[in-house]
Amino acid sequence: MTNQEILLVNRPVGLPNPDDFEIKECEVPTVDDGYILIRTVYLSVDPYMRGRMTEARSYVAPFEIGKPLNGGMVGQVVESRSPDFQAGDYVAGQWAWRRYNVVKADKRVSKLNPNLAPPSTALGILGMTGLTAYLGLTKIGNPQPGETVVVSGAAGAVGSVVGQIAKLLGCRVVGIAGTKEKLAYIKDELGFDEAIDYKDRENLHKNIRAACPNGVDVYFDNVGGSISEAVIYAMNDFARIPLCGQIAHYNDTKPAQISINVFHTFVTRRIRMQGFIVSDFVESFGEAHAALAKWYQAGKIRQKETIIEGFENTPEAFIGLFHGENIGKLLVRVPDEV
Amino acid sequence: MTNQEILLVNRPVGLPNPDDFEIKECEVPTVDDGYILIRTVYLSVDPYMRGRMTEARSYVAPFEIGKPLNGGMVGQVVESRSPDFQAGDYVAGQWAWRRYNVVKADKRVSKLNPNLAPPSTALGILGMTGLTAYLGLTKIGNPQPGETVVVSGAAGAVGSVVGQIAKLLGCRVVGIAGTKEKLAYIKDELGFDEAIDYKDRENLHKNIRAACPNGVDVYFDNVGGSISEAVIYAMNDFARIPLCGQIAHYNDTKPAQISINVFHTFVTRRIRMQGFIVSDFVESFGEAHAALAKWYQAGKIRQKETIIEGFENTPEAFIGLFHGENIGKLLVRVPDEV
Repeated sequence: MTNQEILLVNRPVGLPNPDDFEIKECEVPTVDDGYILIRTVYLSVDPYMRGRMTEARSYVAPFEIGKPLNGGMVGQVVESRSPDFQAGDYVAGQWAWRRYNVVKADKRVSKLNPNLAPPSTALGILGMTGLTAYLGLTKIGNPQPGETVVVSGAAGAVGSVVGQIAKLLGCRVVGIAGTKEKLAYIKDELGFDEAIDYKDRENLHKNIRAACPNGVDVYFDNVGGSISEAVIYAMNDFARIPLCGQIAHYNDTKPAQISINVFHTFVTRRIRMQGFIVSDFVESFGEAHAALAKWYQAGKIRQKETIIEGFENTPEAFIGLFHGENIGKLLVRVPDEV
Repeated sequence: MTNQEILLVNRPVGLPNPDDFEIKECEVPTVDDGYILIRTVYLSVDPYMRGRMTEARSYVAPFEIGKPLNGGMVGQVVESRSPDFQAGDYVAGQWAWRRYNVVKADKRVSKLNPNLAPPSTALGILGMTGLTAYLGLTKIGNPQPGETVVVSGAAGAVGSVVGQIAKLLGCRVVGIAGTKEKLAYIKDELGFDEAIDYKDRENLHKNIRAACPNGVDVYFDNVGGSISEAVIYAMNDFARIPLCGQIAHYNDTKPAQISINVFHTFVTRRIRMQGFIVSDFVESFGEAHAALAKWYQAGKIRQKETIIEGFENTPEAFIGLFHGENIGKLLVRVPDEV
């Protein structure tokens, strides 16, 4: 059994580069009592990881240089020395980017039921990104029936779920995205009321106002920058902004600027903005997961997966996030044979 | 009896100019049944009025060109045709900038008890600016004992009260202001723990960090722009920003810019920012006024007044707000004889 791992070898400057990563052979540790050996099946690549590649203060420790990266993963148990797991079980957790991991069989390992949903959904619509969408939208955005919800990064892993939940809650939903394919996906397949192309910069303000004739009550922001500025100017009094991500600017080498008028608008319209990460709401994970699973089983929410084949292509998949190439959840699948 | 009123004759561009205002003779209306005639004693000049001088959408209608301005005022009843008021009563309300106003004797007229506090306090520490300080700080900032509260515009009408309340609530309090006199006032007279000179731009970040060794938990913002940016970078996880004003930028003719990194900081530290105006909390005015009055009577909070003499100097007093000349509450006093 050959094992491999993917290391961070440089802190990226600007857009990450394949040379910032290295793939290396490594050992498969022995499986002690209470441990399980997991073969990696899916790796999740997520924008927040970019933050961990720098040394800046953040909510999680930075990745270490020369050490394997880690993230959300789905695997299959190959060998179990725990009564709680059997060979063949599908499991999800947060592990090192390796083909094989030996981990303690504790509550950080979630057993999946592949008869209820494909295991890959544990990294997307029924996993961290689904929880992020549900909890940020409901706990901070607090959307009311009839209100207008705008979401940026609308065709992405989080945004696509935000929009569908907002529709289920009775809102008018407007998504902002950047390709014809994405705009068609959110409007025609997911049922958003309107889809706006942010690349049409010249008409962005006008298009937002046209899509939101009653103004914007909730803006779920994954992107930041000039897109956010345009949405904020269309917001109603007492509007809310769950601030989830700023992907437009994660690779800036020189900070972009935003007009100070945004802050003046916050005062005059009494807008509330709140940054969050999903683990702030850990006490509501059960409620959120139950709601998502129920809607998923009933066919009321869904999500495309963009799947890159091959463990060795994980760095490239990650870099692709910042080119806006993926629709829905971006995953890497590792075939069975090494 | 001669009356005068002050009209807005131009919408200011940038810093307001004396020529944007005009003082004019006008009639004293007759006093009908249920009305009272009030002689203006104090006029309040407040930064938010700058917003009403433009036509931009805001929470109050813009002032009309060729019409008198209006604002918070304290007056003395000269003639009453209402059973609720007597000649000689001190009253406060929101009226036109005139030497004499005839107004309906309804609940919008507050009778003052000059034995409890000087009538001018109804425009400052026990009036709208005191309520703004109390309600923004407690309802949005939610400061806890031992936390660090930073306030910008710290020597002003609102900021000086914010800091004193935060001290009473058991917080470490750091004020930001722009003159030696103001810094001495907040630290030596009002008991703030530290006072920072924002004009020392070069050391602003360093000085904030030094004054807040445990980071910033609440930032009550009256000012905006680069001062806010510097404070935000020193904020703790789950910090709160009651966003009250942006006086640094009310007269911008070209919008200033702020680094987009501010928004990234909002996400990673899960900061909550909320714009507000005092009337959003109208249901808590009673509670707030009672708390302020109790502290005031007990000598636990106080406020300097900067007083400009003469009705005709009201525009000049207003313009002075933006030169940062006032300490505490800036008022215009109208002598008895015309």
